Amino acid sequence: MKVSAFIATSLDGYIAKPDGDINWLMEADNSDAKEDYGYKEFSDSIDCMVMGRNTMEMVMSFPEWPYENKRVIVLSNTLKIVPSQLKDKVEFYSGSLIKLVTQLKNEGCKRLYIDGGKTIQAFINEELLTDITITTIPILLGEGLSLFGKTIHDIKLKLLESNSYPSGFVKSTYEIDDV
Amino acid sequence: MKVSAFIATSLDGYIAKPDGDINWLMEADNSDAKEDYGYKEFSDSIDCMVMGRNTMEMVMSFPEWPYENKRVIVLSNTLKIVPSQLKDKVEFYSGSLIKLVTQLKNEGCKRLYIDGGKTIQAFINEELLTDITITTIPILLGEGLSLFGKTIHDIKLKLLESNSYPSGFVKSTYEIDDV
Repeated sequence: MKVSAFIATSLDGYIAKPDGDINWLMEADNSDAKEDYGYKEFSDSIDCMVMGRNTMEMVMSFPEWPYENKRVIVLSNTLKIVPSQLKDKVEFYSGSLIKLVTQLKNEGCKRLYIDGGKTIQAFINEELLTDITITTIPILLGEGLSLFGKTIHDIKLKLLESNSYPSGFVKSTYEIDDV
Repeated sequence: MKVSAFIATSLDGYIAKPDGDINWLMEADNSDAKEDYGYKEFSDSIDCMVMGRNTMEMVMSFPEWPYENKRVIVLSNTLKIVPSQLKDKVEFYSGSLIKLVTQLKNEGCKRLYIDGGKTIQAFINEELLTDITITTIPILLGEGLSLFGKTIHDIKLKLLESNSYPSGFVKSTYEIDDV
């Protein structure tokens, strides 16, 4: 099973401003092209998602729930009851990530999409993430929420591909390990 | 005059380990090719360099002083006397960076090479850097000395080019502003 992240960061490595604001990201693409930077292809390749509570709450603020056909697991130690607007759309999980990954694999998941900075960091630190696609936006934010955090040791990656776009975005996909 | 940085970072944005160690960088290129990632071309294009004292001390530990044909300015508020082994090789400077840039421009410098994390950050924050080439190494260090620091406001850049190499390095050049 592949366990994948697909995320945008500023050139200085932030996924959001200190307060979680991502408007800078929404405004970054000034090109005319209806370019999705490979997101639809990625999205079509995944059947299950794991995100943190913060990401769930951000996504709930969007006009529509964008993951209708995916199984979505939300990591939370405190939430137990799914909000009514997300009934049948998400499941809550609290506990070991390796157990969760094993369980989802046994239940037939082919590719997991890991979203949110803290969640991605946790999957990296438990050596569960198999690949990460980073789209680098040509902006320095100067401060914010980091994509990466402290790791116990160096982690070597393998570049699978890298492409740049007329907007100045650079998308690179790295392989880490296979679960 | 162009004011340029040319530097390698880990995928998580560090130019060195917390103690300044860059062995991870020296060991990162396992490819057979004698690839210099555009360094010679860049080096040939610059006539003056500005670096911090830490960078000078690191470069002094190399077998040879690599900047024989460049005018090298070392920023230091405390050092006044050039070490004997660097006599006629470096000048010390303490004071305003904008004054330094103006002075070097008036003295005929065509392209300045700004080296070292703190020095690059200072030039960015004073809006003096015109372009930066970042070679991203496919490794997560987890902690270390950051290439970028806090900025007063968002800084938008323009991607000039991006290339990837068989080693997995990704080199991207961004334009900031023209002095």
